Amino acid sequence: MSTHIGPVDVDALRARLDRATTAASIAGLDGLLVTPGSDLRYLIGAGGSSFERLTCLVVPVGGTPLLVVPKLEHPGYAGVPTDELGVEVATWVDGEDPYALVARALKGTRHAVSDMTPALHALRLRDVVGGEQVLAGPVLRELRMRKDAAEVAALRAAGAAIDRVHARMAEWLAVGRTEREVGADVAEAIVAEGHAVAEFVIVGSGPNGASPHHDLSDRVIEAGDVVVVDIGGPLPGGYCSDSTRTYVLGEPRHDDVWRTYAVLQAAQAAAVGAVRPGVACEAVDAAARDVIADAGFGEFFVHRTGHGIGLDVHEEPYVVGGNDLPLEPGMAFSVEPGIYLPGRWGARIEDIVVVTADGVESVNTRPRELVVLPA
Amino acid sequence: MSTHIGPVDVDALRARLDRATTAASIAGLDGLLVTPGSDLRYLIGAGGSSFERLTCLVVPVGGTPLLVVPKLEHPGYAGVPTDELGVEVATWVDGEDPYALVARALKGTRHAVSDMTPALHALRLRDVVGGEQVLAGPVLRELRMRKDAAEVAALRAAGAAIDRVHARMAEWLAVGRTEREVGADVAEAIVAEGHAVAEFVIVGSGPNGASPHHDLSDRVIEAGDVVVVDIGGPLPGGYCSDSTRTYVLGEPRHDDVWRTYAVLQAAQAAAVGAVRPGVACEAVDAAARDVIADAGFGEFFVHRTGHGIGLDVHEEPYVVGGNDLPLEPGMAFSVEPGIYLPGRWGARIEDIVVVTADGVESVNTRPRELVVLPA
Repeated sequence: MSTHIGPVDVDALRARLDRATTAASIAGLDGLLVTPGSDLRYLIGAGGSSFERLTCLVVPVGGTPLLVVPKLEHPGYAGVPTDELGVEVATWVDGEDPYALVARALKGTRHAVSDMTPALHALRLRDVVGGEQVLAGPVLRELRMRKDAAEVAALRAAGAAIDRVHARMAEWLAVGRTEREVGADVAEAIVAEGHAVAEFVIVGSGPNGASPHHDLSDRVIEAGDVVVVDIGGPLPGGYCSDSTRTYVLGEPRHDDVWRTYAVLQAAQAAAVGAVRPGVACEAVDAAARDVIADAGFGEFFVHRTGHGIGLDVHEEPYVVGGNDLPLEPGMAFSVEPGIYLPGRWGARIEDIVVVTADGVESVNTRPRELVVLPA
Repeated sequence: MSTHIGPVDVDALRARLDRATTAASIAGLDGLLVTPGSDLRYLIGAGGSSFERLTCLVVPVGGTPLLVVPKLEHPGYAGVPTDELGVEVATWVDGEDPYALVARALKGTRHAVSDMTPALHALRLRDVVGGEQVLAGPVLRELRMRKDAAEVAALRAAGAAIDRVHARMAEWLAVGRTEREVGADVAEAIVAEGHAVAEFVIVGSGPNGASPHHDLSDRVIEAGDVVVVDIGGPLPGGYCSDSTRTYVLGEPRHDDVWRTYAVLQAAQAAAVGAVRPGVACEAVDAAARDVIADAGFGEFFVHRTGHGIGLDVHEEPYVVGGNDLPLEPGMAFSVEPGIYLPGRWGARIEDIVVVTADGVESVNTRPRELVVLPA
């Protein structure tokens, strides 16, 4: 049995490193420089966490990968089978120059840094490695946005976990409680249902629901409030959940809620229904947007329809106007149209879907209707 | 009364923007590009949180500052008195090009990006703004590492808050509990004692204490264990705490604990005692290191003596060999030597100190002795 690192086995990791090297070569790069974050986790199974001390996986085209890591953070990579992956390790201590270690492993005319590399490191790497510096995102996203069976299974498990939290919402979401109190309970449940951490908890009640990125406030929830609950985070294996449902406490205060929500539900269903191999990302966006615009709410749907998801909550592909990328089996992303009526109320419905060989699978399966809780 | 944003009033923010512009000019820059994080919080009082959607404060030399922000994240900046600060705001929606907005406000031959800007944005900004791109860190750290009275007061409040958590450690740290169980209680207490979030909780028991960046594990704490507890996070105003104390459950299992810990305590006291204006950072490091090395433990003190602290837990100045920066009043940093005996046990003592007009003030005041808890 081969070593597993989270949901991925060592053979899969080795294949990813090989494909990354090949893709870098095809892109005309001398190599990739990958610092802590989801790209690193994707390639070696551990994402690291350092900031000002340089950790960097050097993936040279035609050479041996090298992990440069501070000695005191090296224990955090104990689970990485570097020998089996063919990755060399160079540790450094405070006072030594880690950039020189990178430069010894990679010199050339054109290299790429991971998208999340802080400028603090990117600019120093640019100076020591020399040549042109470009983003690794366009190379790595070609790998990362096509999920294999193990990754899809991990997303499915994440979807089931967050669905279990939504299924329990009536335990916490009630009249007289503040958004913050509800959010604290929801955050606890997100972890209790199997997540490593509650990465985000949005409870937007009443007028706060009309602000798409509102998180939590001390507003007390009242009878008749429409409440947007957008929650998720990574499972211990790193793959993320993200799902939104909209609730109402008793009969909605505003008399336009039911008919407006019906438009939103139709839009979300239309977008999910548009997903299949070959369809462009922008066409999925349009499928939701057209339904909302045709009903006269176009100006109140103020964001893209969705974002890719995997080891990051937000990653490629983005379901947005102007993105003509054709969908392929294994791509995973959110479908989350919303309608936001400033100062009044808002609603959003969000599922994570995966493109299958001939259509779509939603990893979230909770009912998409407006959920009525006791007032 | 002027507007307050966290611990800082609007006059202080305006002065920071002015000083940043002046410093940028002196550094030969056309302007600064500051993306979400502590630099942004330092300059306008809100740090933001976006990743893939560009938020960027453009601070042109000889022009009007411009905050480019996604429309759906704009509500998160509601507390920023942009008018009073003389900052213009440009919002953008999905599908529009935010980099073009930045380029319209800043063109030139040499600009700086904030150190924490992800390469995703830094490289695109490099391409649209043109000219040479350098780090803003060397400019902004000159401001940020010299804390004013309000900032020192905020660090003092953070120190008092984390001291209250250490004072309660006997409530949670006990034989038979796992590090993770203890850590969960400590994290809750960090918030209960006034922090916005428990940013890090290290409970390194027995041999885990010998790994300086170990965080939490399922190891069950036993009688005789030495336990390193390193905890902290930001208060709601953004300024951070960070303090380590070392505990033992009953009589230490290893017979070298008491005499080795005495060396560590002497080293930490020597380093704190060395702090005053004009002394180089590396001299403070040496003050701790020499005591430890003279006692024969030099190879077991595997990290720098400290790091600056403020809106970031780790920032300039770094107390490390090779850093000849002379200390000035208002500089704040950790003094945290450790001794780590691989496979056996480890210990660390950490206080945050502030350089005063003629010496040093420690914002942490808990006893620095090895704390014996009931076994």
